[in-house]
Amino acid sequence: MGKIYFDHAATTPIHPQVVEAMLPYLHEQYGNPMSLHSFGEGPREAMEGARAQVAALIGAQPNEIYFTASGSEANNMAVKGIALMNRHKGQHLVVSAIEHQSVLNAAQTLEKLDFEVTQVPVDRHGLVKADDVAAAIRDDTTLVSVMHANNEIGTIEPVAEIARAVKEKTPGVIFHTDAVATVGTVPVDVKELGVDLLSLAGSQFYGPKGAGALFIKRGTRLMPLIDGGIQERGRRAGTENVPAIVGLGVAAELAKESLVERAERLIPLRDRLMERLTSEIDSVYLTGHPTTRLPGHVSVCVAFIEGESMLLMLDMQGVAASSGSTCTSRALKASHVLMAIGVDVALAQGSLVFTLGDSNTVKDVDDVAEILPPIVDRLRQMSPLYKGN
Amino acid sequence: MGKIYFDHAATTPIHPQVVEAMLPYLHEQYGNPMSLHSFGEGPREAMEGARAQVAALIGAQPNEIYFTASGSEANNMAVKGIALMNRHKGQHLVVSAIEHQSVLNAAQTLEKLDFEVTQVPVDRHGLVKADDVAAAIRDDTTLVSVMHANNEIGTIEPVAEIARAVKEKTPGVIFHTDAVATVGTVPVDVKELGVDLLSLAGSQFYGPKGAGALFIKRGTRLMPLIDGGIQERGRRAGTENVPAIVGLGVAAELAKESLVERAERLIPLRDRLMERLTSEIDSVYLTGHPTTRLPGHVSVCVAFIEGESMLLMLDMQGVAASSGSTCTSRALKASHVLMAIGVDVALAQGSLVFTLGDSNTVKDVDDVAEILPPIVDRLRQMSPLYKGN
Repeated sequence: MGKIYFDHAATTPIHPQVVEAMLPYLHEQYGNPMSLHSFGEGPREAMEGARAQVAALIGAQPNEIYFTASGSEANNMAVKGIALMNRHKGQHLVVSAIEHQSVLNAAQTLEKLDFEVTQVPVDRHGLVKADDVAAAIRDDTTLVSVMHANNEIGTIEPVAEIARAVKEKTPGVIFHTDAVATVGTVPVDVKELGVDLLSLAGSQFYGPKGAGALFIKRGTRLMPLIDGGIQERGRRAGTENVPAIVGLGVAAELAKESLVERAERLIPLRDRLMERLTSEIDSVYLTGHPTTRLPGHVSVCVAFIEGESMLLMLDMQGVAASSGSTCTSRALKASHVLMAIGVDVALAQGSLVFTLGDSNTVKDVDDVAEILPPIVDRLRQMSPLYKGN
Repeated sequence: MGKIYFDHAATTPIHPQVVEAMLPYLHEQYGNPMSLHSFGEGPREAMEGARAQVAALIGAQPNEIYFTASGSEANNMAVKGIALMNRHKGQHLVVSAIEHQSVLNAAQTLEKLDFEVTQVPVDRHGLVKADDVAAAIRDDTTLVSVMHANNEIGTIEPVAEIARAVKEKTPGVIFHTDAVATVGTVPVDVKELGVDLLSLAGSQFYGPKGAGALFIKRGTRLMPLIDGGIQERGRRAGTENVPAIVGLGVAAELAKESLVERAERLIPLRDRLMERLTSEIDSVYLTGHPTTRLPGHVSVCVAFIEGESMLLMLDMQGVAASSGSTCTSRALKASHVLMAIGVDVALAQGSLVFTLGDSNTVKDVDDVAEILPPIVDRLRQMSPLYKGN
């Protein structure tokens, strides 16, 4: 049996057409896009082409797209940039309790710099309520950040509704959404969502690592995270990573063409895996929303054992999966997301996340559904917590 | 005649061996280095290999190397990270007047956040005096940042001497050097320099765009610029750009093997070009230090005409060069570096920077020395400022 990659949330493979498009910019087209001479021209035009491709994917204007090196950088740029730019208006932010670490820890850094942060709770499916967000807004609130979908439990948030509630309550508050888990995977339109800023990352939709972007609605001002030259219209300094940006553009174009089809193919696989795992293994609980969730995302908690042990044994059988967020998987801390949806601390240890993608088939799903039960059995036999049949 | 690339300070071409080493990480080795499963292993090991290669180039320990996406990011991470981490000790920084925009503008942002910044002047060759830096240190100074070499005028600074003077005056002050222009081009050793932090960028020494690093001496604490996951030991979040990091590592190894030889080959070319331009064209003045300068770096000011016009006409004849810093070349402002060394504002408009590299030959030098004089003549004939013969 070949390897089964069920960890697309950690990173997707790069689409061959994406790599193909990048290669000239690793070879002869090496110029700096800022250069006035002809060596800069090709790279500059390619970069602007990619900007248009990314804009088209999310219904934005090209000049509202600012390239970054990652989704985390885009989130930091948004959260810190808006908060610091507007510090004289107020020093209060609102975020959901299940934001990615790059939003939560950016907010925590702002707390050290005398900002206040309110975390809005979520329900047991991980849904953020628009009313709760609106209620958290104060006179000194300048920024609200609620993610579009959660990477650990797959739940897709009602961002359009939340943004509307926020703007109705206080039109001046800036709304950011971390859409790293959704852009390229489900349809995303910044106008329909009604957001002022939106983060995305190429490594989530068959693009290269090292390329993300922040959508900044025209007229929205922020303090740059990376100061320096006038790249990205003075908002993000540093020589542009042209090959990765070109790759991001092609990945965006491919996603625009195929994401609906991709999702239609993944949803039945997802549902089959969810169904088999929860029905065929004892004491396995789905986390996140049962239906309003990312197309290829299956997250469960397996009682009485640890996610890490399962991952290692799955890996020995050629299955790549994750436990909670990849960004902290090596930190071995209980997931703040699982805590926020009310999962018991002990049960949260048994977190397992399968994220499916283009290369996966029904056979992969069935193989994993066969491989996991004996692993669970064996680990439970060794577990002092397990008193099962 | 083929094209002549004399703009290596803007960016170098990527060495073929560097691209070769990157390719597997754009194809099958796509895993996330943070993943616990086997897909993460290869990328993780490759990344740690690159960390060792970069460390070896500058005499550091691998665990003192933190990858970034650019030299500008490394500079921002250093300046803001140290200043904000130590804000309760003091809110004063010292920088030289000719720092790169990513240092100066980061310092300017800190000024908005109530820090104070002292800019130490330089002499007419662009040299920073150690005594001047030491004298600028106050009781509330937490950081000194002086670059290793200036990208616009090529002058190499006596950083070891400056760092020593700083530490003698106040051992607790943290010393950062922006070595983006020197690492990979001249020998750099963090211990010999006596610095606490040092920035470098792969695109300056035949590595890929999108990969830089910050050396942080063990025990030096800073506030992360990009918060989030635990990548880079919690100091720089975001999925690592494995292909670019691998490329940076190989470029570092190639540089370590060949930089002395490369420099020995470039210095005579540089000196030949400096000599021919200043002797064969009227009213052309060398900027920066005549001898203590980067091996391939020739910077001049041509009186009575504008750098941009010369660049465009050079470009039409296949010669790629620069005027001032590439990062701001499109901003068309008088260079702060030329102002700092006392160049007259009008003369500074005629700035021209040629930066030579591996592919260049004596013939290239002679060709440019032949191509430029008629361009200068023609532009001067059209210039209302020129009253020459």
